[in-house]
This record gives sequence, C-alpha cells and structure tokens, in this order.
Amino acid sequence: MHPIGRVRSPFTDTTQIPKGPGAKHDTEGDLEINPELEPGLTSIEGFSHLFVIWAFHRSESYELLGTPPTDDRPHGVFATRSPRRPNPIGLTVVQLLHRDGHTLRVRGLDMLDGTPILDIKPYLSSIPEAQLRRGWLDEAEARRRAAAPPID
Amino acid sequence: MHPIGRVRSPFTDTTQIPKGPGAKHDTEGDLEINPELEPGLTSIEGFSHLFVIWAFHRSESYELLGTPPTDDRPHGVFATRSPRRPNPIGLTVVQLLHRDGHTLRVRGLDMLDGTPILDIKPYLSSIPEAQLRRGWLDEAEARRRAAAPPID
Repeated sequence: MHPIGRVRSPFTDTTQIPKGPGAKHDTEGDLEINPELEPGLTSIEGFSHLFVIWAFHRSESYELLGTPPTDDRPHGVFATRSPRRPNPIGLTVVQLLHRDGHTLRVRGLDMLDGTPILDIKPYLSSIPEAQLRRGWLDEAEARRRAAAPPID
Repeated sequence: MHPIGRVRSPFTDTTQIPKGPGAKHDTEGDLEINPELEPGLTSIEGFSHLFVIWAFHRSESYELLGTPPTDDRPHGVFATRSPRRPNPIGLTVVQLLHRDGHTLRVRGLDMLDGTPILDIKPYLSSIPEAQLRRGWLDEAEARRRAAAPPID
C-alpha cells in the first residue's frame, strides 16, 4: 500500500476533530492526489459524494474492545470507527465541491492534515433510511436524550 | 496490512459476479473473521449494514483510465470500482443477517471466495437520494435506456 495522495485539512491534532453525537462534519479541505495519478480522476467531477479510504498514520496499536466517545460502554472495534484497528484503515464519505487538476476540494473531512490517502471511489447508492439500524449508537444517543432532554 | 478474515462466497471466478446496470447484489455468504479477533465483533449484531474493506488479491497491476462494463467510454480509476487500482482495495456494503461467533452471515457479496478482509465498519448514515449524483454512471444508464427502451 502506497499513498495516492494526502489530505489537506485544518486539523493538526485529533482533539480538534468533531466527535460524538451531533458532531457536524462540514469541514472543507483538499484531497491532493499525486500529480502522476491525475488521469485516474477523469470523470470524477460528475459524482456528488466520494468514499475516501485512508490510513490512520498516527495509530500504533489496536484494541478489540473500546469505549467510543459516543457511549459509556465498550464495543467491539469492528462495531465502531475507532482509529485503533487491526488494520489502521479509515473511511470517510465526503461531498465533492470541485476538482482543480489533481486536487479535489471536498466537504466533510474528519482526518488530520497530512493523512495518507489510499483510495478514492465514487459513492453510488445509499441504504434507504427505513432499512438502516445503527445498533449501540442509536441506543447511546437515546440514553443521552433521555438523560438531558432538549430545553425549548 | 494483514487479513482479519476471509470471505466465503459462492463466486470462484470473477465472471460469476453480477456486474453492470441492474446487477443484483443479493448473494449471501459469510465473513469468517479470525477467531482471536472475535471480541472485536462485540455489539455488531445491532447494525443492519456493514462496510467491508477487502483486498483485490488477484489484481496484479493497475490502469488509470479504463472502460467499465457499465459504459462504452473510459473513466478514471478513482471514478470507478475497477479492481485494477493503485492500491487494490475493495469496498462493499453488505446487509448483516446474523452473527454466529466469529462468523457474520451477510447478503450483498460481490467478492470471490477466499477474498482477504482488511476491515469491517458499521454503516452509519446515507446520503439522501435527492442530494446524490452518480456522474458518468447515470449518463451511461440513460444512454442504454434510450438505445433499448423497455418493452411494455
């Protein structure tokens, strides 16, 4: 695996990245693809959203069970987006704003500046909301809402 | 990168895998995770859909521009799901049917039997259909429909 490019984002420290319930991922930045790979971006402008597959390059070990920031109980690493994974691979869906040569301007970044990009793929289809269940995350969010109901 | 498990699918040859417009991906099979990683699957049963990140283990080279089976004109590799990618990483969304220990029964496989699995993540949210554009793929499908309108 070799990086095909790097993320240019405003985040220089993981504490700056929004996490947890209600976190907004509308941060803009660039996917700087290696210039020699630019032909591989042909036609990409037609897609509104992209999958970005990247490396947690600062992650040095993994844990199979961990407590995510969104909950107070432990879950398996494959049921979370924890960076401490057996293979330190990250996956983010971004909105493609425009392309300038070998640089893609995108919205929705949650990676550190300098993150190595491994692959980019078009986002082709969605699971209808009525069919989607989000397991412990829905439950954790419901518990939080019950513990602190919104004030009108 | 080390496999965390293997795909058990009915496909032993890539020609058997449905491709192109209208292809149905409802094939069932198993994600056999390495037994020592089973704690990493804790809580995964609560999710209806999973991302599976895997390796195109039979892909030996890449091409930056290629003509996908869904179209008659070339597109950049990062605007397609071609197996011939700079990093041979595949991504599939599957429906989780049930878990039996370290084995996940899933629907929606499009990988060969024996495919190495690199990571599994919960599928958390979808892009609303009204916001989704699918670029050359929508155009190619529209051209096909125009060339061969359905017979009533």
